[in-house]
Amino acid sequence: MITDLRSDTFTKPSPAMLEAMFKAEVGDDVFGEDPTVNKLEAMAADMFGMQAALFCASGTMGNQIAIKCHTQPGDEVICERLSHVYIYEGGGIAFNSSCQVSPIDGINGKITASQVQEAINPDAVYKANTSLVSIENTTNRGGGNCYEFADIESIKDTCLQNNLKLHLDGARIWNALVAKSETPKMYGEIFDSISVCLSKGLGAPVGSVLLGTTEFINRARRIRKVLGGGMRQAGYLAAAGIYALENNIATLAQDHLHARQIAAALEKKSFVHKIMPVETNILIFEVSAPYSAVSFTNVLAKFNILAMAVSPVQVRMVTHLDITDKMVDDLVKVIEQL
Amino acid sequence: MITDLRSDTFTKPSPAMLEAMFKAEVGDDVFGEDPTVNKLEAMAADMFGMQAALFCASGTMGNQIAIKCHTQPGDEVICERLSHVYIYEGGGIAFNSSCQVSPIDGINGKITASQVQEAINPDAVYKANTSLVSIENTTNRGGGNCYEFADIESIKDTCLQNNLKLHLDGARIWNALVAKSETPKMYGEIFDSISVCLSKGLGAPVGSVLLGTTEFINRARRIRKVLGGGMRQAGYLAAAGIYALENNIATLAQDHLHARQIAAALEKKSFVHKIMPVETNILIFEVSAPYSAVSFTNVLAKFNILAMAVSPVQVRMVTHLDITDKMVDDLVKVIEQL
Amino acid sequence: MITDLRSDTFTKPSPAMLEAMFKAEVGDDVFGEDPTVNKLEAMAADMFGMQAALFCASGTMGNQIAIKCHTQPGDEVICERLSHVYIYEGGGIAFNSSCQVSPIDGINGKITASQVQEAINPDAVYKANTSLVSIENTTNRGGGNCYEFADIESIKDTCLQNNLKLHLDGARIWNALVAKSETPKMYGEIFDSISVCLSKGLGAPVGSVLLGTTEFINRARRIRKVLGGGMRQAGYLAAAGIYALENNIATLAQDHLHARQIAAALEKKSFVHKIMPVETNILIFEVSAPYSAVSFTNVLAKFNILAMAVSPVQVRMVTHLDITDKMVDDLVKVIEQL
Amino acid sequence: MITDLRSDTFTKPSPAMLEAMFKAEVGDDVFGEDPTVNKLEAMAADMFGMQAALFCASGTMGNQIAIKCHTQPGDEVICERLSHVYIYEGGGIAFNSSCQVSPIDGINGKITASQVQEAINPDAVYKANTSLVSIENTTNRGGGNCYEFADIESIKDTCLQNNLKLHLDGARIWNALVAKSETPKMYGEIFDSISVCLSKGLGAPVGSVLLGTTEFINRARRIRKVLGGGMRQAGYLAAAGIYALENNIATLAQDHLHARQIAAALEKKSFVHKIMPVETNILIFEVSAPYSAVSFTNVLAKFNILAMAVSPVQVRMVTHLDITDKMVDDLVKVIEQL
Repeated sequence: MITDLRSDTFTKPSPAMLEAMFKAEVGDDVFGEDPTVNKLEAMAADMFGMQAALFCASGTMGNQIAIKCHTQPGDEVICERLSHVYIYEGGGIAFNSSCQVSPIDGINGKITASQVQEAINPDAVYKANTSLVSIENTTNRGGGNCYEFADIESIKDTCLQNNLKLHLDGARIWNALVAKSETPKMYGEIFDSISVCLSKGLGAPVGSVLLGTTEFINRARRIRKVLGGGMRQAGYLAAAGIYALENNIATLAQDHLHARQIAAALEKKSFVHKIMPVETNILIFEVSAPYSAVSFTNVLAKFNILAMAVSPVQVRMVTHLDITDKMVDDLVKVIEQL
Repeated sequence: MITDLRSDTFTKPSPAMLEAMFKAEVGDDVFGEDPTVNKLEAMAADMFGMQAALFCASGTMGNQIAIKCHTQPGDEVICERLSHVYIYEGGGIAFNSSCQVSPIDGINGKITASQVQEAINPDAVYKANTSLVSIENTTNRGGGNCYEFADIESIKDTCLQNNLKLHLDGARIWNALVAKSETPKMYGEIFDSISVCLSKGLGAPVGSVLLGTTEFINRARRIRKVLGGGMRQAGYLAAAGIYALENNIATLAQDHLHARQIAAALEKKSFVHKIMPVETNILIFEVSAPYSAVSFTNVLAKFNILAMAVSPVQVRMVTHLDITDKMVDDLVKVIEQL
Repeated sequence: MITDLRSDTFTKPSPAMLEAMFKAEVGDDVFGEDPTVNKLEAMAADMFGMQAALFCASGTMGNQIAIKCHTQPGDEVICERLSHVYIYEGGGIAFNSSCQVSPIDGINGKITASQVQEAINPDAVYKANTSLVSIENTTNRGGGNCYEFADIESIKDTCLQNNLKLHLDGARIWNALVAKSETPKMYGEIFDSISVCLSKGLGAPVGSVLLGTTEFINRARRIRKVLGGGMRQAGYLAAAGIYALENNIATLAQDHLHARQIAAALEKKSFVHKIMPVETNILIFEVSAPYSAVSFTNVLAKFNILAMAVSPVQVRMVTHLDITDKMVDDLVKVIEQL
Repeated sequence: MITDLRSDTFTKPSPAMLEAMFKAEVGDDVFGEDPTVNKLEAMAADMFGMQAALFCASGTMGNQIAIKCHTQPGDEVICERLSHVYIYEGGGIAFNSSCQVSPIDGINGKITASQVQEAINPDAVYKANTSLVSIENTTNRGGGNCYEFADIESIKDTCLQNNLKLHLDGARIWNALVAKSETPKMYGEIFDSISVCLSKGLGAPVGSVLLGTTEFINRARRIRKVLGGGMRQAGYLAAAGIYALENNIATLAQDHLHARQIAAALEKKSFVHKIMPVETNILIFEVSAPYSAVSFTNVLAKFNILAMAVSPVQVRMVTHLDITDKMVDDLVKVIEQL
């Protein structure tokens, strides 16, 4: 039995989710005729109080489509230096949207309104036109940290004052909602677009949902098509998403507890440093001699525990649906031995 | 009960295919760990005698990735004027690859080596650099027609002489293989890349496979990621593809018979003209007064028969797995009444 | 002494034009401080009754900037199959604007409103969004032919009805104005943007002017910068343009006469066919045995007369400022001997 | 009389340079027939010991073409955070090349080999492919600082080890050559491409030259055309460049002396801080109360002295050919009074 903490993308559907998939009513979604996809889209839009939604093959696709719809070639996008859209999407902002990034050094993956303000280019013929701010909540490389909602509101104000759009990479927004006792509608009111993932903490096998106005989603649907993201009987995947939204949000609190339990064990070890604040299901920490990030993950692997080296000295562990109390107990014991 | 002849993309999985899907062993394919996706890719590469394969969310994605990998921005792509890559992929050749198209007026969707030769730009600083030829087999808007294999070989010779790559949009290559008694390996030997669909005549719900050299597929995998086409537990979809390859090729001959039966009925009607030669599962014909393409499809719809108007006077019908002998008999009777 | 009829781009400034250049007052145009550039831009805008203008390094730059400003990536541009923007600008519509071309087979380079109407894509997620029509007047590969103004008005109506922008590649609009006794303001009222060349019939060494609304030109100025087209003391070039506008339009009639004189000589030769109607300063005709286009131009070259082979059987001659009555007389004699 | 220290792009040709321009022999450079352009290109290539050269309308065009030729869409370019290619070329790396930037925080605009090493992405499907390093010498926003040549050699080693191309934005390489007693050939041996400006310290009105291998320049010529940078009788501009290369390099030492003289005056003022080391002709310093950068430049403007605010607290002055000893003396006196 493997304890796979590399990412929450490794979850596999439960029997109940599989059954929901198996029973899904489907149709050709390229023609808008898949009732399960349509239901998922309506359900997600409704949760966030947004006008419309689009099922996408991945969080990357949701983010990339949103960025494309909000920008023109030659524009500049403001985001945190380690944000997923910038460093984990294959250079997609440049590839798909021909836009430049102005990366901000944030704290635990979070940026502030004043940093955004400072990063906005003046209106000059030789400066890229700043048109979009993209933030992550929770932050992936920021250790799963959550924004204070008031800070998001400040960023929104700055965007409004400067005619910038605001996108949320909400790959793990569900974790933030649970950790901060927030509602989806609070986010729906603020953001011009939101991309939420079904295939991370929520445990669906594939898919994300992009949210925005009807006009925005109409344009997004065209971009999805041109990227090759129009799928036929996608309802089998969407059914898992519906199941996840209905059943798997509440259980995220358990993942957060697991992360804190692991952190507590790590804190006692002299070779562990700079554990980023554990607010949700991501744990990022540094190791020192005798360990490098890679050698540490290799040691854990001998115990059938998988973690990920995200820099030469940084290790990431992500808890999720498929991580049980027992697995966490065992991991804690392993850490104590090291 | 609807007789849906709008496209072979409307098929729904049979119980056996569904069962194969939900028994699939899966993993995170972004990390290359989905065994079912890996099996499908190996199986498809092996069928065509090509080095490697990549599972894609759609035929459009397979084609677009291939075109991107073969070209540089500013290059020119030669294809038939009504080919799918040019007119049905949202302007993707320009959007994704920043390439220009030199469309050729073919016959039933097919172009010739001499037409290709003529379309190649001279080497001049002000001319787009011709670098790729893309052909369709069977041809979609060409009425499902098939190339003579010798004609494909001639096009390949022209490509080799002019340092052009050759891509096959094989969305319906299975129909051509059956109609012409050809083998996949004949194609694998000729083409630099092939995109084949699982979700058309073969009846899988979602997906295509892109084929090429290992080096090509490695680059294709990067492009798939940047387009957002990297999916997590995609094995559920791939399992349907494996089932389709193992079980649904042989039955295509039945679809071809159905198309000929419908054509025979149409030929007798005075308002039906220019039925394109029926070689596979696509029927395209013109209607005249009292019908327009749209009014004709509306009349059929009253009998629960769906067809598609593809131009003001052209109607398309596509037979597939879910079209039974009985449905064809009933349709023939309806046509006779009109 | 060479009689260079390859193109009207080969003209060299007259002593008077050179003197105007030499005396130009200049400044840094990237900062908007070159008074001569500013004067040229104001002068050109005024001539056409348009709000604003932008000096560009070439006609290609003017056209490419205009197309970029009018479109979004993935859009489709309608133009004649042999139009300069499509076949002589290095695939720039795809490279700079990521747009696809829908080429129309026109007559002598001219297209009609009904052809435009037919080429407009329906609003569907899989179709490129048609957003721009670009026409040439005079037509280059159409043998210098001119549109009837009423036909342009019809095209404009079609554009308005379908929410399309209309661009004029007016590289040789001056020749059309003279040949058809039209005024620049007639064009300024119709087109969303116009690119006019100073370096063809008008004899300036370098440069074009792009015309449009103030808002359009503001965006065009940004695109010019990103393409690297922002020049410093460009006033030396602009001064030649001002001189050309003031002095070299009237003399175009002489070029047109020369073209007709050459055509009259060619008409008598049995090996000359399909002389395109000679309305301005371009002559395109086919040659037959014993000549190919290349061998014919080689024969002329022995008499120090340069013409251009534009296809295997087509030869192009272009008259201009530097072609004298004497040169035309001599050429006529040479033709008579062949 | 204005003392214009905003940039060295504001220089105007001397009478001798002007005379060289208007005696230039010219031709159509799009057809490769302008002898003066050809001479300039050969001369520049020879100076740097590189195979070939291309005359460009601006430094931005030279840089942008080089970046395009060295990269593929989706690649990542490493450069200093304030480098011209990243912050002053309108987002061109994304617009023209669809590449992403990984900006490094350097010292006085200079980066190190180890910083480059650290910025190189691992080979992963979700990471942009690092393919190019671009450095500036002298550094513009780094206060005209010069690299130690050994540090450039170290960066080159890192590039070679990691299969990266190395481009030099040599807008002011002439100043570095003079300040450091280096030769152009030292640079020609190291870099894959070099862009040098004629219109800054050298005083030509317009133009840059891009240098590289013959194969590189052939591709660059295509890109120049597609950007609209192919100019007709460009020899008038090239002649100024030839004059500048022959006459205006030696005088740069005077500009450097002027900059040091102004710096010496500024150093004594209590409201002036953080004067960046003055190695060439650029002076960047911070001002404090009672001045902001803008109010300080406004005060100088009253004395007919123009400087540029480059951040809320930073002022830039650039000395050049048109700045005389007298002007510097007067400026020093003005500074003393403040």
